[in-house]
Amino acid sequence: MTIDISQLTLEQKASLLSGKDFWSTKSIDEAGIPAIVLTDGPHGVRRQAEDDDHLGINTSLPSTCFPPAVAVGSSWDRDLAARVGAAVGREARAFGVSVILGPGVNIKRSPLCGRNFEYYSEDPYLSGVLGAAHVTGLQGTGVGASIKHFAANNQETERMRISADIDERTLREIYLPAFERVVTEARPATVMCSYNKINDVYASHNRWLLTDVLRTDWGFEGAVVSDWGAVSDRVAGVAAGMDLEMPGSGGATDRQIVDAVRAGKLDEQLVEQAVERVLALTRLPHDATGEFDTDDHHALAREVAADSIVLLKNDDEVLPLRENTSVAVIGAFAAQPRFQGGGSSHLNPTRVDAALDAIRDQAQALGVTVEYCEGFTIAVSDRGERLRDEAVQASGRADIAVVFAGLGDRQESEGFDRDTLALPDDQIQLIRAVAATAARTVVVLSNGGVVSLEGWHDGVDAIVEGWLLGQAGGSALADVLFGHVNPSGHLAETIPLRLQDNPSWLNFPGEQGHVRYGEGVFVGYRYYTSANTPVRYPFGHGLSYTTFSTDALVPRATGDTTADVEVTVTNTGNRTGKHVVQLYVASAATTVRRPVRELRAFTKVELRPGQSTTVHFTLNRRSFAHWDNDFGGWVVPGGTYSIQVGANASEVLLDEPITLTGDAIPHRLTLNSTVGDWFGHPVVGPLLTQGMSAAMTDAQVLQAQDNPDLMKMVESMPMRQFITFTQGAIPVETLEQLMALSTETDS
Amino acid sequence: MTIDISQLTLEQKASLLSGKDFWSTKSIDEAGIPAIVLTDGPHGVRRQAEDDDHLGINTSLPSTCFPPAVAVGSSWDRDLAARVGAAVGREARAFGVSVILGPGVNIKRSPLCGRNFEYYSEDPYLSGVLGAAHVTGLQGTGVGASIKHFAANNQETERMRISADIDERTLREIYLPAFERVVTEARPATVMCSYNKINDVYASHNRWLLTDVLRTDWGFEGAVVSDWGAVSDRVAGVAAGMDLEMPGSGGATDRQIVDAVRAGKLDEQLVEQAVERVLALTRLPHDATGEFDTDDHHALAREVAADSIVLLKNDDEVLPLRENTSVAVIGAFAAQPRFQGGGSSHLNPTRVDAALDAIRDQAQALGVTVEYCEGFTIAVSDRGERLRDEAVQASGRADIAVVFAGLGDRQESEGFDRDTLALPDDQIQLIRAVAATAARTVVVLSNGGVVSLEGWHDGVDAIVEGWLLGQAGGSALADVLFGHVNPSGHLAETIPLRLQDNPSWLNFPGEQGHVRYGEGVFVGYRYYTSANTPVRYPFGHGLSYTTFSTDALVPRATGDTTADVEVTVTNTGNRTGKHVVQLYVASAATTVRRPVRELRAFTKVELRPGQSTTVHFTLNRRSFAHWDNDFGGWVVPGGTYSIQVGANASEVLLDEPITLTGDAIPHRLTLNSTVGDWFGHPVVGPLLTQGMSAAMTDAQVLQAQDNPDLMKMVESMPMRQFITFTQGAIPVETLEQLMALSTETDS
Repeated sequence: MTIDISQLTLEQKASLLSGKDFWSTKSIDEAGIPAIVLTDGPHGVRRQAEDDDHLGINTSLPSTCFPPAVAVGSSWDRDLAARVGAAVGREARAFGVSVILGPGVNIKRSPLCGRNFEYYSEDPYLSGVLGAAHVTGLQGTGVGASIKHFAANNQETERMRISADIDERTLREIYLPAFERVVTEARPATVMCSYNKINDVYASHNRWLLTDVLRTDWGFEGAVVSDWGAVSDRVAGVAAGMDLEMPGSGGATDRQIVDAVRAGKLDEQLVEQAVERVLALTRLPHDATGEFDTDDHHALAREVAADSIVLLKNDDEVLPLRENTSVAVIGAFAAQPRFQGGGSSHLNPTRVDAALDAIRDQAQALGVTVEYCEGFTIAVSDRGERLRDEAVQASGRADIAVVFAGLGDRQESEGFDRDTLALPDDQIQLIRAVAATAARTVVVLSNGGVVSLEGWHDGVDAIVEGWLLGQAGGSALADVLFGHVNPSGHLAETIPLRLQDNPSWLNFPGEQGHVRYGEGVFVGYRYYTSANTPVRYPFGHGLSYTTFSTDALVPRATGDTTADVEVTVTNTGNRTGKHVVQLYVASAATTVRRPVRELRAFTKVELRPGQSTTVHFTLNRRSFAHWDNDFGGWVVPGGTYSIQVGANASEVLLDEPITLTGDAIPHRLTLNSTVGDWFGHPVVGPLLTQGMSAAMTDAQVLQAQDNPDLMKMVESMPMRQFITFTQGAIPVETLEQLMALSTETDS
Repeated sequence: MTIDISQLTLEQKASLLSGKDFWSTKSIDEAGIPAIVLTDGPHGVRRQAEDDDHLGINTSLPSTCFPPAVAVGSSWDRDLAARVGAAVGREARAFGVSVILGPGVNIKRSPLCGRNFEYYSEDPYLSGVLGAAHVTGLQGTGVGASIKHFAANNQETERMRISADIDERTLREIYLPAFERVVTEARPATVMCSYNKINDVYASHNRWLLTDVLRTDWGFEGAVVSDWGAVSDRVAGVAAGMDLEMPGSGGATDRQIVDAVRAGKLDEQLVEQAVERVLALTRLPHDATGEFDTDDHHALAREVAADSIVLLKNDDEVLPLRENTSVAVIGAFAAQPRFQGGGSSHLNPTRVDAALDAIRDQAQALGVTVEYCEGFTIAVSDRGERLRDEAVQASGRADIAVVFAGLGDRQESEGFDRDTLALPDDQIQLIRAVAATAARTVVVLSNGGVVSLEGWHDGVDAIVEGWLLGQAGGSALADVLFGHVNPSGHLAETIPLRLQDNPSWLNFPGEQGHVRYGEGVFVGYRYYTSANTPVRYPFGHGLSYTTFSTDALVPRATGDTTADVEVTVTNTGNRTGKHVVQLYVASAATTVRRPVRELRAFTKVELRPGQSTTVHFTLNRRSFAHWDNDFGGWVVPGGTYSIQVGANASEVLLDEPITLTGDAIPHRLTLNSTVGDWFGHPVVGPLLTQGMSAAMTDAQVLQAQDNPDLMKMVESMPMRQFITFTQGAIPVETLEQLMALSTETDS
C-alpha cells in the first residue's frame, strides 16, 4: 500500500520522525501506517519482553548468541559472516523485528576501546567486506540492517559528547570506507548515526556526513536512525538528513520540528523526505513469522566460532592434544565461559557450551583424562592463592596444562574503555606458575579486545586466541584443541608489545571534549609496518595444523587504474585446512605519504593435503587510490605499485611490481605554486627556463650554478614570494600567460 | 624629537609601513623621520656591502661569528647568552645597524628541521631563558632585537605556505612560551612574524597571534616586522597588527593600504598605530658608532664555544688527551671547519680557527705528536677509498685517533629539511674502519641538527658533540680535547635511537599544505619519557671530566601555586668544573594528560674540587600550570607535585613531593556535564543522591547496585541524555535549580 503523505498533517509527519518508545516507531492507523520494531543486534536478537529497557537490565527473550564481530573478523570469511546475518534475520522474523541494529563497522583505532568486541578489525577493507556480507545475509531474510555507528565512534570514553578531530583524508581512507562498502554493496535499510561529534559537529546533525557523503557521494537511499539518545539538535538533524530519532522523546522534538517549519526555519520538504524514508522502513516485514531451529543455529554458531579461533603460537606442535594423555584444564573461564560482551548487544542465549564440558565429552573417545581446577575467580575474591596452588599441583600431575584466561565483564564492556592491555594480575601469576611446573602449557584466551601477552608469552608452548565466541564457543574451542577443526583464524588487529607502541596512544581517549586523530591514516598495522616498530603478533597472523605455500603471483594491469591478480596456493602439510590469502598493495608513486602496505583483497580457501588452487583477485581503482585533500577526491598517481602476498601485514611472501598509467592529474599553476612547481611543469617549465636564461647574465648563471643550496631554497619558494625577491625579473603578465597555458594543457 | 603624525598624509603614513629596499626603512626628511637598517643575525652581524641581497650570495662585511643557537642552547648558560647578545650589539652599533634579526626561539619539533642550528632547544623554557638573556644583552647596547619566527615555524619544507595545525594548549605550552618569556622579560624592540600559516591563517595577518596573544595577553609594545617576503595580505596584516613589511614592495602594498582606508575597509587608526610603532624603531640608534675589538670578541666566541661542547661518551676516561702520546687527527672537518649554518645567518667571519691548527698548537707543550689525514672529502669525490685507507693506517700508528665527522652545507641548511639523521655513508664507514684499527677512537661531531650515532656508537671510546661552534670553534674543541676546558655542555635536544621514534615522525613535514602537530605537547623528551621509549642520549645529558653530587633537595610551597626550592651541589671529583642543575616538575594532579616531567628551572654553577654550594630556585605558578582549553587560561590544579633534580630528562636523581592548594576551579554544571560530574559535584552531588534514593524503589536500588558495569556506563552519560533515558525521573526544573546552585558555589 502506498501512503500519500500529502494527506498527513505537519504534526503527523513530524510524529513519524521519532519513536513511540524504546523499540517501536509510531503508527498512524487512519493513514494505514504501521509501527515497526527495531531492536539490538548485531550477533543475535535482543528482543526485550518489556519495552522500556535499552540498557540490558532486564532479561530478553532467548535467542542464539552468535560470535560477535571480534570473532567473525578473525575468521576472514565473508560466507560465514553472511550466514550469521541470515540466521539473525530468521530469528528477527520469528520475533517480529523489522530492523536489527548492526553490524558495527567502526575501526579499532585503539585496542583499549571497550566496544572493540563489536567491531571487526583495525582495517577498513576487512571490516567493510565482512560487514557487507553480514548485511546481505541479514537483509536476504527481509529484515533491515542498521549499520553503525556512523561515524568515527572509536571509543567509549566521552562517546556522547567528544569531538573526533580528523582530517578528511583520514576519514575517507580509514574511518568511512567500511560504511561506504556496506552502503554501496549491501544497501542496508538504515544507517545509525553515532553519539559523538566529528570535527565539532554532532554526527546526528552533521549534514556533510549524513547527506554530502552518505547520500550524494555513496547514493544511500535508506533512512538514518539516531543511536539511542544521540540527538542533540533535532531541527538541525532533520535538515542534515537524520530521519528517525530513537527512542521517543515523548513528542517534545516532534513539536520542535513543527515549530521550526511554521517559523520558516526548516523546509517542510526536508521533513517530507525524512517521512518518506521512515515510511519505507514500515514496509519491511513486521509480523512475527516463521520459527528458527535452535539446534541448527547453535551448530552454525559453533562452526563460525571454530573458524574464528586464532592459533597464535604452537611450539613443537603441542596442539592438537594427543590421544591417551592427561590434561589439566585450569581457569574459571573453562567452566564459566565469557562468550559475549556487555552493553546493548548482551542477549539471553538459547544455551551455552562450556569448554570444560566439551573437552570432557571429546576426551573420552581419545582416551584423554581431564582434571579441572578453577585457578582463579573471575570476580575478585580472597581464594586466589589457594586456587593457584591447587592448579599448579594439578599441572604437575598432567601431561599438559590448558589454562583458560581472559577478561571478565568488569574489565571490558560497552560504555567504558580499558586503561591497560594486561590480563588481571592473578591470572598472569597463575599462567607463570603453571608454565613453570607443567610439562607443556597451552593458554586459551577469552577477551573482547586485545590483551598483552608480555610477561608470560615466552614461557608457554601454545596460545589459542578465543576472543568472545558466542554461545557455542566452548565446543568450538574443544574442536580446535583436539584437532577436529583445523584452526584458520587470523588476527584482524595487531597484538602490540607495548600499549605505548600503538599509534593512537598519545591521543587516546583525548581530553576536554576533543580527541585528536594525530596518527592520521597510520592506524594499526599501517603504523607498525611503516615505522618498522616490532609487535608481538602482526595483523593477519594465524597458524594452522597444516602448512601452505603460495606461488606464481601474477599481477596484470587491466586499465589505467585497475589490475587482475592470480596466485596459486598449495596445502603442503598433511591435514585438510583453510588458508587466507592476503593481498596487499604498496605504493611508491604518490604525492602523499602512504602506509608501507595496505590490505586490498583476501579470500579463504579450503585445501586437502597436497591440493593446489589458483586464486583470482580483481583490484579496482580504489585499491590504488589515495584521498587527495587538495583535489577533493580519489587519485591514482601513475607509476609503479607492488602487489604483495603476505603471511601477515609484516611478512611479505611474494612481491611483484606493476606499472599503472594512473589518473591524469591537472597541473594547474598559481602564484602560490612553488618555483619548483613552475620550473617542473611539463609545459610551462621549459618556457620559463628559456626565458630566465635569456634574462640572466653569464655571471648570474654561474653564481646560481655555484649555489646548489640556494637553488634548493629557492625551489620551495612560492612564485608570489620569488617575484618579490627578484623584483621584476619575471613580469607578472608573463606569469599570467603561463598560468593560462598550464590550465589549457590539463587533460 | 617627537613626530606629530597628524602632520603626515595618508600616503606618507602608509609608506612608513614597508621597507625602502632589502635592509632599510623609508625616511621622510621633511618630517624628520630617518631611515634605519635592520639586518640579519642572530649570532653575528651580516651587514651586506650592497643593499640588494637577502639570500647571502654576496659576501658581507667581516664580523665575529659567534656560536649559533644550537651551541648556546647546549651551554645552558644565560650569562654567556647575554654576553654574546651584547657583543653582537657592539658590532651592530659599529656598522650602524639599528635592529638585528634574531634570536630564533622556535622549538626543535623534529631533528630534521634544516634550521635547527638557529634554534636553542626542544624545550620552551630553556629556549625562552636563553633567548631572553641574548635579547637583554643585545638591547643593552641600544640595538633592537627581532625575535623570530613568530610562530610555529618548525620546518623549512613548504615554510612559506604550510599551515601548522596545532591546538591551543599545544601552542600555549610548547610553541609560544619562549616568545612569551622574551617579550615579557626582555622587551624586544620587534617581533618577526613567520612565513607559515597557523591553523590556516598566515602569521603575517593573524590577528589572534599578533594582537590577542602578543599584545593583549603579553603586553608587547614594540613593532611586528614581517619575515622577508612573508606578507600575504597587506591590508589584513595592518588590521592584524603586522606593522612593518620587509623588504619593500616598490610601493605596491603602500597603495593597497591607502586604497583600503579610502574605501572604508581599513580603520586609519590601525594604520596610525602601526606608524607609531615603526617610528619608535627609528628612534633606535642608527649612526655607525664605536668600534669592536675583534680579538676580544674572538676570545668570547671561543669561551662560549668551549662551554657549549657536549661530551656524550668518555669510556675509561679516554679524554682529555694524555701528555706524550701520539694522536691521529682524521677527517676533513678538522682542517676545514664547519662552524656556521647556511642561509640568511651565514656571515663573513673576522677569522676562523681550524681544530687541526689549534690541536697542533696545544700539542707541542704536552709532548703530543699529531698526524693528520683528510679521511673523506666534504663534497662528493672519488678519492674516498684512498683517503679512508690512509686514515686507517695512520690510526694504527697512533695511540689515539680523533675523527672529525659531521654534516656539510649540502646536508643541512636554512631552506630545506633533512630526510635522514645519518652521517654521510663514507664518514660512517671511516669511523667504523678507524675504530676497528685504532687503540682508542674519539669522534668529534660538527653538525647543526642532531645526527644518529647508530652503527658506530658502541665501537668508539668517546664522542664529543661540537655542533656548529662559530669562528673560534676549532680552538674551543682543542681546549676540551686537551682538558684546558672541562666540558660542561648538556644536550638541549634528545638524540634518538631511530628517527621513527621521534613523536613528530608521522606528521613531519606534512603534506598538501598542512602539517598536523599530532603529538600535541609531547614534543622531544616530553614524549620519550612519557612513552618510556629508549633513546641514545636524553635531553639534558652531558659528561664532565669531574663528578658532581646533588643532595638535600628541599621544596617548600610559598603560596597556593608557587614554591621555593633549595638543593646542594658538590664537586666530588678532582677538577674544577661547571655543573648544570636541572629542576623538573612532575604533576599527578591534573585534568589533562601531562608529560611525565617538564624542565621548570636550571642554573649552571662552577665548583672547585670538593666545593659545595646551595642553589635556590623560585617556581612561579607557570611552573605548575597547564593551559586549559575549556577554561581558556592557565590552571594549577590542587594536589601533589614532584620536584625532581635530573641528571637529564630520563634520570631522576632526587625527587620530593609538595602539595599545592592550586587554583579554585569552578565546577559549573550544565546539561552537557556527565552524570558522573553531577553526582561528583561537591555541593550538588549529595543533594542529587538524596533525591534519587528517595525516588527509587528498593528493587531498583538493588538492581543498580548489582550492575556496576551499568553504573560505569551511566556515569559517562551527559545529563541531557540521562534524563531522556530515565524519562522524567529527575524533572528538568530540579536540574535547573541545581545548576544555579553549582554556579553560586564557585569561588
